[in-house]
Formats: sequence, C-alpha cells, structure tokens
Amino acid sequence: MGNKLWGGRFAGSTDPIMEKFNASISYDQRMWDADIRGSKGYVKALQKAGLVSQEEMEKIVQGLDKISGEWAAGTFAIQPFDEDIHTANERRLKELIGDAAGKLHTGRSRNDQVVTDMRIWLRDAISTLKGDIMQLISTMVERAAAEINILFPGYTHMQRAQPIRWSHWILSHAVALSRDTDHLVEIRRRVNVLPLGSGAIAGNPFNIDRELLRKAEFLFWASLCLTHLSKMSEDLILYTTKEFSFVSLSDAYSTGSSLMPQKKNADSLELIRSKSGRVFGRCAGFLMTLKGLPSTYNKDLQEDKEAMFDCYDTLHDVFQVAMGVISTLTINPTVMEAALSPDMLATDLAYYLVRKGVPFRDAHGCSGKAISLAESKNIPVNQLTLEDLRTVSPLFDNDVSVVWDYTSSVEQYSAPGGTARSSVSAQIQHLRDWMKASGN
Amino acid sequence: MGNKLWGGRFAGSTDPIMEKFNASISYDQRMWDADIRGSKGYVKALQKAGLVSQEEMEKIVQGLDKISGEWAAGTFAIQPFDEDIHTANERRLKELIGDAAGKLHTGRSRNDQVVTDMRIWLRDAISTLKGDIMQLISTMVERAAAEINILFPGYTHMQRAQPIRWSHWILSHAVALSRDTDHLVEIRRRVNVLPLGSGAIAGNPFNIDRELLRKAEFLFWASLCLTHLSKMSEDLILYTTKEFSFVSLSDAYSTGSSLMPQKKNADSLELIRSKSGRVFGRCAGFLMTLKGLPSTYNKDLQEDKEAMFDCYDTLHDVFQVAMGVISTLTINPTVMEAALSPDMLATDLAYYLVRKGVPFRDAHGCSGKAISLAESKNIPVNQLTLEDLRTVSPLFDNDVSVVWDYTSSVEQYSAPGGTARSSVSAQIQHLRDWMKASGN
Amino acid sequence: MGNKLWGGRFAGSTDPIMEKFNASISYDQRMWDADIRGSKGYVKALQKAGLVSQEEMEKIVQGLDKISGEWAAGTFAIQPFDEDIHTANERRLKELIGDAAGKLHTGRSRNDQVVTDMRIWLRDAISTLKGDIMQLISTMVERAAAEINILFPGYTHMQRAQPIRWSHWILSHAVALSRDTDHLVEIRRRVNVLPLGSGAIAGNPFNIDRELLRKAEFLFWASLCLTHLSKMSEDLILYTTKEFSFVSLSDAYSTGSSLMPQKKNADSLELIRSKSGRVFGRCAGFLMTLKGLPSTYNKDLQEDKEAMFDCYDTLHDVFQVAMGVISTLTINPTVMEAALSPDMLATDLAYYLVRKGVPFRDAHGCSGKAISLAESKNIPVNQLTLEDLRTVSPLFDNDVSVVWDYTSSVEQYSAPGGTARSSVSAQIQHLRDWMKASGN
Amino acid sequence: MGNKLWGGRFAGSTDPIMEKFNASISYDQRMWDADIRGSKGYVKALQKAGLVSQEEMEKIVQGLDKISGEWAAGTFAIQPFDEDIHTANERRLKELIGDAAGKLHTGRSRNDQVVTDMRIWLRDAISTLKGDIMQLISTMVERAAAEINILFPGYTHMQRAQPIRWSHWILSHAVALSRDTDHLVEIRRRVNVLPLGSGAIAGNPFNIDRELLRKAEFLFWASLCLTHLSKMSEDLILYTTKEFSFVSLSDAYSTGSSLMPQKKNADSLELIRSKSGRVFGRCAGFLMTLKGLPSTYNKDLQEDKEAMFDCYDTLHDVFQVAMGVISTLTINPTVMEAALSPDMLATDLAYYLVRKGVPFRDAHGCSGKAISLAESKNIPVNQLTLEDLRTVSPLFDNDVSVVWDYTSSVEQYSAPGGTARSSVSAQIQHLRDWMKASGN
Repeated sequence: MGNKLWGGRFAGSTDPIMEKFNASISYDQRMWDADIRGSKGYVKALQKAGLVSQEEMEKIVQGLDKISGEWAAGTFAIQPFDEDIHTANERRLKELIGDAAGKLHTGRSRNDQVVTDMRIWLRDAISTLKGDIMQLISTMVERAAAEINILFPGYTHMQRAQPIRWSHWILSHAVALSRDTDHLVEIRRRVNVLPLGSGAIAGNPFNIDRELLRKAEFLFWASLCLTHLSKMSEDLILYTTKEFSFVSLSDAYSTGSSLMPQKKNADSLELIRSKSGRVFGRCAGFLMTLKGLPSTYNKDLQEDKEAMFDCYDTLHDVFQVAMGVISTLTINPTVMEAALSPDMLATDLAYYLVRKGVPFRDAHGCSGKAISLAESKNIPVNQLTLEDLRTVSPLFDNDVSVVWDYTSSVEQYSAPGGTARSSVSAQIQHLRDWMKASGN
Repeated sequence: MGNKLWGGRFAGSTDPIMEKFNASISYDQRMWDADIRGSKGYVKALQKAGLVSQEEMEKIVQGLDKISGEWAAGTFAIQPFDEDIHTANERRLKELIGDAAGKLHTGRSRNDQVVTDMRIWLRDAISTLKGDIMQLISTMVERAAAEINILFPGYTHMQRAQPIRWSHWILSHAVALSRDTDHLVEIRRRVNVLPLGSGAIAGNPFNIDRELLRKAEFLFWASLCLTHLSKMSEDLILYTTKEFSFVSLSDAYSTGSSLMPQKKNADSLELIRSKSGRVFGRCAGFLMTLKGLPSTYNKDLQEDKEAMFDCYDTLHDVFQVAMGVISTLTINPTVMEAALSPDMLATDLAYYLVRKGVPFRDAHGCSGKAISLAESKNIPVNQLTLEDLRTVSPLFDNDVSVVWDYTSSVEQYSAPGGTARSSVSAQIQHLRDWMKASGN
Repeated sequence: MGNKLWGGRFAGSTDPIMEKFNASISYDQRMWDADIRGSKGYVKALQKAGLVSQEEMEKIVQGLDKISGEWAAGTFAIQPFDEDIHTANERRLKELIGDAAGKLHTGRSRNDQVVTDMRIWLRDAISTLKGDIMQLISTMVERAAAEINILFPGYTHMQRAQPIRWSHWILSHAVALSRDTDHLVEIRRRVNVLPLGSGAIAGNPFNIDRELLRKAEFLFWASLCLTHLSKMSEDLILYTTKEFSFVSLSDAYSTGSSLMPQKKNADSLELIRSKSGRVFGRCAGFLMTLKGLPSTYNKDLQEDKEAMFDCYDTLHDVFQVAMGVISTLTINPTVMEAALSPDMLATDLAYYLVRKGVPFRDAHGCSGKAISLAESKNIPVNQLTLEDLRTVSPLFDNDVSVVWDYTSSVEQYSAPGGTARSSVSAQIQHLRDWMKASGN
Repeated sequence: MGNKLWGGRFAGSTDPIMEKFNASISYDQRMWDADIRGSKGYVKALQKAGLVSQEEMEKIVQGLDKISGEWAAGTFAIQPFDEDIHTANERRLKELIGDAAGKLHTGRSRNDQVVTDMRIWLRDAISTLKGDIMQLISTMVERAAAEINILFPGYTHMQRAQPIRWSHWILSHAVALSRDTDHLVEIRRRVNVLPLGSGAIAGNPFNIDRELLRKAEFLFWASLCLTHLSKMSEDLILYTTKEFSFVSLSDAYSTGSSLMPQKKNADSLELIRSKSGRVFGRCAGFLMTLKGLPSTYNKDLQEDKEAMFDCYDTLHDVFQVAMGVISTLTINPTVMEAALSPDMLATDLAYYLVRKGVPFRDAHGCSGKAISLAESKNIPVNQLTLEDLRTVSPLFDNDVSVVWDYTSSVEQYSAPGGTARSSVSAQIQHLRDWMKASGN
C-alpha cells in the first residue's frame, strides 16, 4: 500500500489499472509550484496559531524550498505510489525532514489543499492570459491607428452593407476582447477570495461549490473568448480568399498543400477557429460531470483539472498565434476600396429623402426602387440621371450627387462607435486609456 | 408581399414554408410590452433630436398606447404578414395613425429595435427571477433557523462523514443560491447599459457582440443555477428514499405510480433535476449556433429568443416549485439522529491525539487502526476499552470519552462556515442581512 | 384530486404550479393518434389473452374510435386534470363507455403506454422525414444531371484548389444526405422492434434503456444531418456573396434589410445553418438529463418528448426549405468558369513531370517553383515560356501546353467519386438507383 | 524550412509558436504502426498499377519495415521539423532509402494518408474495446448465474417498487452493454469500407464527410456507452451507502479519506461516472468544431485526433476498472432481502382483485386504500385482517395470503425479460449464446 494517506484501515491491495485510473500525478504535477507555495503559507498559519513550533515551521519551509529546487532543476523523482502532486511533495518532505513533515497536514484535508493549489495556479494562469490578451489588443489598436484611412465594405449576412473603415473592423474585435479582459479580471478577483473554514465537511460544502463555480466560470469565459476569436478568424479566412483578396497572411502563419503546389492556406486561423469547439467541449463535459452529483466532494470532480489545464494551454497558444497573425498580415487597400460600390450608399440615399421630410419607411422604399431601376438599366445607381431619380421621388435634386462619396458616407456616423474618423480615433484613445488603466 | 419592410426591391414571392420558417411572431409576441415601451422611448428621443415634431410624437405615443391596450385586452389581431412582433406593432400603428407611423423608424434598424426590446424584456425577466430566488432563499433561511438543533450525518462521496446540523445542509445550498443571485444582479447591471450609436453597421458590430455576450452569460448563469438546484434535489431524493427516510415530501409535490399503489415518488425533485440538462442544452445550442459565424448580424442569431424564453420560463417554474418543496417537506429528526454513529467521530479521535502532540498523519493512522480494531471485534468504536485504545497509541487516556459526543463534535467547528451553533447562526444572520441589503 | 391515476392513497392537494410543472398535455397531445392506435392494439392483445371479453374489447375500440374522431375534428375538450394525453384519452373513454374503460389498463403501466405511443409516433415521424429528405436528394440529383457541364473551382481551406464540375459539388452533398437516409432507415428498423415483457420493473429496465437509446440516436442523427445541411448552406452563403457571385437565391428564399434597401440576404440558408446548433443543443440537453440517473424510470426522462418534437419539426421545415432553395437558385456559369485560373492546374503540372519519371515530391517542388516564377513575373503560370519552365526542370517540353485545359483536367479523375463526366454520371445513376431501391 | 512538404513556394519562416500550434506529432505518433501499414499497402497498390517498379516497391517496403522496428524498439528519433507522424516516417524513409521514398506519395494527398491511418487505427481500437466490453459482460453474466436466488428491491424513482432478483438487476445492465457492443460492431463494419477515389478534391468531398461521420458516430457511441456505465455506477454507489448496505466494494477499488479514517469511498465508481461527462464533452466539442465549416478539408478537422485518442483511452480504462469492480464486489444477501416489505406487493394485491374481475384501475385504487389503512394502523399491509381488507373490497378472501410471498411475486413475471427464475435463466443463456456468436 506504500504511503497512501488512508492506509491505516485497508487490507486488500489495489488493482494497478485502478491505481492509474485514480492517479492524477501525470497531469497535476504542473501545479508543483502552487502546491509548495500553498504549503508554505499554511505552515506559517499553523505556527501563528500555535499548532507547530517556530523551529518545526522553519524545518518544514526549508524542506519545501529544497523540493521546489528539485522541481525547478528537473531532478524531482516521482515514485510509483505518488498518486498526485500533493502526495508526492508530502512523501518527499518526509524523506527530507522526517516525522515533522506530518505536522504540515494538521486540520487540512486533501480537498482543502487541492482547492488552495488550484486557486494559486488559476490566479497565475489568469495573469499570464491577461498579459497575452492585452498584447493582442495592443497590436490591434496600433494597427487600427496606423491604417485608419483605409475604407472597405462592412458586411452583414456576408453581404456588402455599408462602407466602413478597416480600423472600425479591427476595433470591433478589439473591443470584444477588452470586454473579455474585464470579465477575466473579475474572475481573478473572485479567485483571490480566501475560502472559509476548514475540514472536509465543516467548511467545504460552501467552499467546494464556490471553487466549482469559479472553474465553470473560467471554462465558459474561455469558450466565449474563443468564440470571439473564432468570429474574427472567420472574417479573416474570408478576406484571404482569392475572391475577397483583402488581406494576405504572412507565410509564417500559412501552410501549403502537400498535393497542390499553388495553395496557401490560412491554417493558423482555421486552428484558432477549431479551438472554440475544443474548449466549449471541455466546458460542456465539466458541466455534465457536475450535473446530478449530490453535494460536497465526490471523486467525479477530479475531472476539473485536465479541463482547466487544457483550456489554459489552448488559450495561451491561441493568443500568441493570433497576435502573430494580426501583426504580420498585409492588407490590399486597392482591392478593399475597389470593393465599394454605389449601391452600398442606398441607406444614405434614403436619408437624403428623410432630410427632405419623407418618413423613413417611405424613403427606404424609394431608395429600393432607385436600386431596382439602376439594375434594370444595368448601370450603377449613382449613374441614374436626375430625371430617373425623380420618377422615384420628385424630391430628388442636384444636391443628390453629394451622396455618392464613400468618405462622406463614413463620416456621417460620428456617434460613439461610429465610422467617422473622429469616432474611430476616440475608440482607439479609449482603448489605449483602458490598457493603461488595466495595468498594461 | 404585404407589408414586408424590405418590399421595395423584390419581385418574386415567398414560399409559405419559408414564411413560417422565417417568422418569429409565434414566440416573440410575448415581447409586445417591451416593444411598445421601447418605441415610446425612441420616439421621445427623436422628438428631442428634432427629427419628429411634438405633434407627431404625441400621435405616435397615443397610437402605441392604444396598441398596448389591445394586447393587454387580448384583442390584438395578428395578421398573416406580421412576421415578428415589431412588424406587427408597426403595421397596427400605421393602421391607427397613418403615415406618421413611418417616422418612428428613422435611423433605427430592425436589429437596433430587436436589441432594445430584448434588453427591456430581459431586465424585467431578471427582476422576476431575482424575486423568485430571494423567496426561495428566505424560505430556506427561516427553515434553517427553526431547525438549528437537528443533527444528522454530513456526507462526502455519499458516505457518512461527520455529524453536521441539518441547518448547515440547508444553508450550504442557500449560500450557493445567494452567490447565484449576486451574479444575476451583475448581469442585470450589464443588461441596463445603453447601447452605443445606431445603424446596422455603424454601431452594431460593437452592440451585437455585447448583447450576445449578455445572452450567453444569462443562459450559462441559468445552467449553473440549475446545477445547484439539481444538486440539492439529488440530496433530497436520496433523503426521501426508504433507506434514508430523513425527509418526506408533501403530497402536493409527490406523485404516485399508475401501477404500484404503494409508491410515492419525488417527481417534483426529479423534474427540477432534469431541467439542468434542458437549460444547459439551450446554452450549448446557442453557443454552437454562434460558433463559426462571421461578425455582425446573421440571421442565425434569431435562435437566441426561444432559448432565452425557455430558460426564463423553466427557471420561473423551478424556483416556485423548489420553494413549495422546501417549505412543505417534513423532517424525521429521530431517524436523522439515529443515523449518526461513533465511527463518524474518527477525525475527532485523531484530533484528540493531535492535541497530545502527535503529528496529524500519524494520528490519522492511529484512528484508522482503532476503527479496524472495533470492526474486528464487531463493536462500535466508542465501546473499545482504554486498554484496546492503548494498543493503538499509549497517549489515549480516560478523557477520550469526551470525544464520543455528537453535539460536542459539531461545536468544535466554530470558524465561519462551520457546524457550531454560533457559526450556523452567524451564517443565518449573514443571509438575512444580505437579503435586506439586496432589496428583498 | 380529480382523476389522478394514483389518487387512491394521497390526502394532500397539489400545488397548481406543480400541476403545470408536472403536466405534459400542452405538448404531448400531438401524440393523440399514436395513443389511440396503441390502445387499440393493446386491447386486442388483452382479448386474445382472455383478459377482456370480445364484447368489452369491441366497446373499448368503439370508444377509442369516437375519441379519435373528436381529436380529428378539433372538438376534443382537454380538462384541467388531464395531465397528459394518456390520462386525457382514458378519462374520455370512461365518460363514453363507463367502467369497462378501466380494463384497458390491465398489466400496462403508464411507462409501457408512453413507450408504445412514442414508438408509434417516432416511426411515423421518421417516415415523413425520410420522404422529405428523399425529395431533397432527388432535386439535387436532377439539378446535377442538368448542369453537368458547368465547371467551377473546388475549394479546400476556402482557397481555390482544383477545377471541378458544379455537379460534383452538388453530389458531394447529396451523397452525404443519402448516407444520412440509410442511417435513418436503420433507426426506423430498430424503432419497429417490439418491447419485451411488461410492468414497470419486470421488463422495463430493459425496455426503458432501449427506448432511450433510440431517442438519443435519433437526436444525434438529427444533429449530424443538420451539420451536413449547415455545411452545404455555408458553401452556398459564400457563393452568394458579391465577391463569389456564383449563385443567386430566388427572392422566395431571401429577405432584404429594413435599413439598407440594396441588400438581399440569404436568410433561408442562415436559418438552416442555425438549426444545427439548436438541434445539437437538444441532443446535448437530453444526454445531460440522462447522465448520472440511476437505472429504471425517473421522472427526469419526461424531458425526452419536447426534444423529440422540436427536432422533428425543425427537420421537417429545414428539408422543405432546403429543397426550395436548391430547386430555385440560379447559377452564373460565366462567373464560375471565370474563377478558374491556371495556377489551379499546378497539381496537373506536377503529374506531367511524374509521368516523365520524376518522384512526386520532387515534381510537386518543381511545380511550386513554376508558380513562384510566374508570380515574380506577374503573369499566369500558363504564360511562362518553355525556357522559363526549363529553368525549373529540363523535362518540360512542348507537350506541356495540354496541361492548361480545365476540361482535360477534370476528365483525368475518372475513378468512382472523381470529377470526370463519366464518374459524375455514374454517381448520378448510382443515386437514382439507390432512390428507386429505397422506395421513393 | 526543413523538410516541409509544401516548401517549394514559401519564402518567409514560421513562428515557433505557430509550428507547435500546427504540429500534431506529440499526439499522433501513436499511429506509427497504422501509418506504416497504410504506406505498405499503398506502395503495393502503386506497383500493381505500374506507377512504381517491383524493385522500388521492395526498397520502400524494406525501409518501412526498418522504421517500424525503430518505433517498436523506442529508438525512432523525432526531429524538430517532423510536424506529424506522416512527415516523420516519410523523412526517415528518405534518409534510409534516398529519393525513391518520394515515389510513395504519388497521387496520395496528406488527407488521404491521414484518413487511411485513422481508419486502420480506429479498426484496431474498436477491436480492443470490443474485447474489453465482452469480458465485462461475461463477468456480469457469470455473476448473475451464480447469484440468481438473491432477491432484493427493484426501484423506480429511487423508491422501492417491486421485488426482483439481484441477477435481474445485473442483466439489465449487461443487456444494455450487449446492445452497445452490437452497435460498436456495426461501426467497425462501416470503418472497414475502403474510401473512394483519390486526391484532395476529386474523391475527398465524399471521403472526408464519411470519415467525419464515423468519428462522430464513435464519439457518440462512447458517450452513450459511458452513460450506461454511469447509470450502473450510480446504482452501485447508492447500494454501497451505509443506508442501503447491499454491496461492498473490494478495497482494491475503494479509497479512504485523508481526513476521516473511517471512510471507504467508492472512488472507482465515481470516476467511471465522471467519464461520461468527459467523453460527451469531447463529442460536443468535435460537433461544434464541425459546425459551420464549409465543405472539404479545413484544418479545423485536426481536432478529431485528440478527441478520438482520449475517448479510446478513457473507455479502455473504464471497462477494465468496471470489470474489476463487478468481479470483486461482495453482496449482503441478508440486508438485501430484509429490504423487501409487504407494501412492495401492492401491485400483486391489485392483480388479485383483477383476477376476480375488477377492472385494473379500480383494483389499483383498492390496493392503495389497503396500504393507507395499514399505514393508519401502523402495521405492515400483510398484517391487515380479512375484515380490514373487506372494508376496501368485498372480493378479498382467505386466499389473499398467497400474495404475501416475495418469491411467488417474482415468479409471476415469466415473460421474456421478466423476473421469474426461468426468464432470468433464459436471459443468461441468451447472452451466453450471443457472446459465442459474437466471437468471444
């Protein structure tokens, strides 16, 4: 039975497959640092409470520091009976300092320890991810600032809708990510709250639930954040098609075809897109594992760790790859502007009539008729003569010509979030200020 | 083509199945009040901005009030071409006040209107749900206060672990629900933020994403909250089995068997448990619908409404049923206390040795050995003689007898969240204060 | 307590919210026909087994027929205590024929009855869906036959890859749907198997599980089938963008924008795409509801019905709309063929060298170099001179000119599933034969 | 750029994070054997088709055999540029046999190769799992045969319903698993079908979809199968509680508590239960990754592998642990039989009246009244006097005493799937025959 913590009572021996099935050391060893930091904090608290002496505390801390050194140097040797990182570190501590090691666990259940370690690990993980995402946002904002003059079609339903600034497109995604960051910071704040009480039963029905909530929140946050990046990737994959040709990915983020020498595929973006499925699968799996459990701890909850680690690793990679993609892609302004066409100004044409007193719904109808008329004549709508337009509405006049200017069109939307240069600049400044305030 | 808003340009006619497939009036008519309130707010803003006259505004407001009256009285007649609640109200307004109705839509896209209506609806829905959940928590807290003296087994892994107060069990669930409530209030706060700008493109890439985020958050919140109620139900279903017999449901929340006359099934709790699957399915479905979409509005997003309505309806029912169950169940204190056994004090026995200087891990081993010894003698562990105990550890003495008292045992845990009377009372007071502060 | 089946023992009264929460009549009434047919079959079996007399059986059958007539005529009046369709029909039967009605339920639990009704309903539902999907496939096959000569780009990674026939694209989706149909027919076969034994316990642990399996299979089948249609829709949405312009949807399956008069959106396809999320959400929700339940019947399982009905309704609509879309869309052959470019023949260029003895990997490298060379000269690859090509490989000769023909290119792939005219025709014939054999 | 297959055209260099993000060698190396077997098959086909010479074929086969030996011996050295197992083996082959290695890839795209390798791997994986599951079923069947005389309560809604045989409970789960096995064999049959045609475009729109379908089917199969094992685990966890005490797990499949020395937790069963969440999460994630993709290959599909491997590994462990649990648990027949009580015979009491001509619904009501009467007198229902019973129905007579025998009760249900000894024995024989026919 080796050093199993609950070895006092059992007589039978464990099935090796069950050992492996039960063990988490293969994946939870990555929490070695959190486990040691957690134990150092705990032994200091025990000493303050008079439950271990100053000398014992120092001995334990020194032992823990030595173990930490072994992990950092890659020399820590995991033994067959080390079922998880906590058992492994405890076993090693006993080897190093003898029986005093046993005092470290006074009043601390394994669950308490796992909860504390996960909290430390998650706090660190969130900080790293926050750094990643802020770098990505920063890249996007600077790119938006540099390319503010480029116009191209805004799309709804994947159909050309109205002219917008390229920067406006970038910022719409950067703003979504900034909201994700704010949400992540809120989660970190909740992760930092110390748990109540102690013991498997006494405090834990409260603590276990809170910890599960945080993990579930993190997994769902990851799913939503990846949905944002998936959406951005979907747009960019479209923009890199031969048919759109608005942007080209750097070779560093593309791959070719083993069969078709002419191909250049946006694999980086497709992989990012795929990860939103993967991460939501982890979230769904975790929720399903929780579902129907009775309260307090059940071993089922051990499933949380691999889900958390996988989500963290996936996001850490995705953010870096996304930053690389955004910072190295090249845009094709000529193609982008050539994709604008007068029919995208049809809403502006309607507003022209609104300004002359026509109710919007009627003006919308007139504009639609003008588009139809141009189609039937096989000419762009801005080449209709004034006579043509007057068959649609007698209110059209010479000044209608001002409608047909893309820059004027985008400049009309000067409200916050609009496409006017001033609005886009304000949004850029807003994000820069937000980044400064958010500590990056 | 009837009164389709985009009727200006199209010539072909629509397939009736497509009409039905596209239409949302069958379910979105429940937002009639939100739609009218939203339009009243909008026309007042238009008047302030000088885009409609005072007279037009008043006419529109009166028309809207009349429509509101028709809905309230159940006399509003939906027409075949009313594809959604917005079209229906607009069509009716035009019938009532003529062309001035068209002015209501100046600068407002259908998406803007849908977003506003959903926001109003969701704010109201959240307020109702908050009221429901607060009533449930209040019931639980008062029950916990009244039955604070009842002890019964606390379980982990569905195995008897340590004695706890019945109130402690109730409160562990009430606290989880109070955290859910705090989270819901945060979501409501975010729902209340007004959207930026206007127009399908100009402002919407920002707004659409924010609204989706809120809806996704609400659906996930609902899933987590129901996971809590599912967990509580799972415990109670267990406690109502013949084998546990800790609680009996009132007949009002039980049903019998059509085949087995002696059966009394906890259908109410089973239904609550099932709903966490249903609601998470809605959440999963919505996330999958979002996944892989390009940015801005795509018709796919119409799927949000049924998901939101269904989650709201489900929760509204579940909270009320749960409150009924909790307030009417009867407990069987005799059975509950009879389920306590001396082996559940094994941790206390270990702590007895810890207080005599034994490291916890060793004390845990000794306690385990004492349990084994008692099992081998086929007697409860508290009937081991002092001699017996001393074969396990020489530190055992006559004072060990104080360990074998369930009330003393629970009184040991007096930290916040603990099982001591003082801790449980403090928790009750904390929840009462929280309810007062949360406006219920 | 009205006519509750388990009314013998209970004294308390039921909470009205609980009544509603527990009742399924609002949605399961659509199984009225299945319920009556199931009961007619059952009473005949009882008569054969000597458990009801010939006269009783006839009385019951006549009563059931009368009830069937009432439902068909829309005159069946649901009463407040009719909690489900089975109770409603039983209550009515008793009103019509008196106490003899009670004999209908000999040895039949409510669960048995629900299982039988669902099986009848599902068998009918599958037959309808099979008809729908066969019509859709038939439309696709005939369109593929009619437009076999149209070439356009095949894509991988959304990048132009190789020339293919438009019919090849259609058939790739039709074949996927034909596999779905085969799978659906298998499910129907399993649905048709009669359940074992009888009684809530005696036979049901076997039966309940089998029925759940079938339902889960159906929900997953629906999810996969909609994933196919979502994929086809995604392609078509792309092909209807201004940038691709390969196809135009009929006005009957498009909608316009309330704000932008020039827009024509592929709403029908976006809705189809969205339904794969919806239906998978139902499947996920059902699996989560099942997860963690103990064996035999638990009320949680009542969630199955709404999931099944919603999936059926969704698919029934989707198939019809998809058929309408496919049969009415118009293609733009000029644009499609203009989208072919010589670099899409790079694989053919590599095979030219392979035929001259170059290992494929080296030939692939040479072809890639030729593409690069053409790009650096800013000319299409087919305009490289022989001298240019010989700098890449000395094996190029005059006969390389035959490579630059799109029709020859597609004709190379004459294996089953290939792009050659003969392969596509064979595939069409194969599907026609399959449809004939499948009874459509 | 090292040996990237698409190295001909690209000039830029790849980001190392992108390299790692894109690479699958860390997990797909486990397919080394499938990859080599697939390549050996392919080169033989090329030789038959005259595309490689006999000599080249032999050289390639020898090279592949050498690589196979290296993998088996653990000496294969993965190089930094080996992005997947296919590239790695191809790179090594070139090192071993020179340029002839390039011929192996004539007309075979990377996708074709991946598809073939996965098919080989999956076929082997299914065979292993089939062996596992058959061993589990065999264990269950033999246990059922040995313990056929043990009666205990059958439950519905977790409430005691009717007496059943313990073997009946075991078999209800064994039968579910046998259906899962049949389904798995069907999937293997479909996996064995050879793909059509060749080339990334030509054949693959057909092949890719079929392979995805198989993978999705396998993942869903795994989810359903684990749902069965989760259900069985849920029952057993319940039966191991102190309150039920029907079964005890062997120490080999239990663990203790680090805090509570007296605890013995059914960790093995809780872990099995948790895996149904994990595996369904993989299935959900994969479906979500598929959702919304356009047709043909997209890099997103690379997500399939880790999902497949994880499901396989999980199931392989779960089946073995489940078999260990089932074969080593001990039952407590005394407790099991003591849990039977006369009220569980209420249905039999109703049938007693049915046999005297009372319609079932009325008989059910009478039986319910008898139960109530006994409860009000605080005696078991079988201790009601004949006078008592006659207040409920005058048809009760002395022969009612035969109702109160548990063995007679279970013997009544002799239909297939029933609880009679003959039915249970027949079911055992049926499963033994099925196992023989299924090749185990």
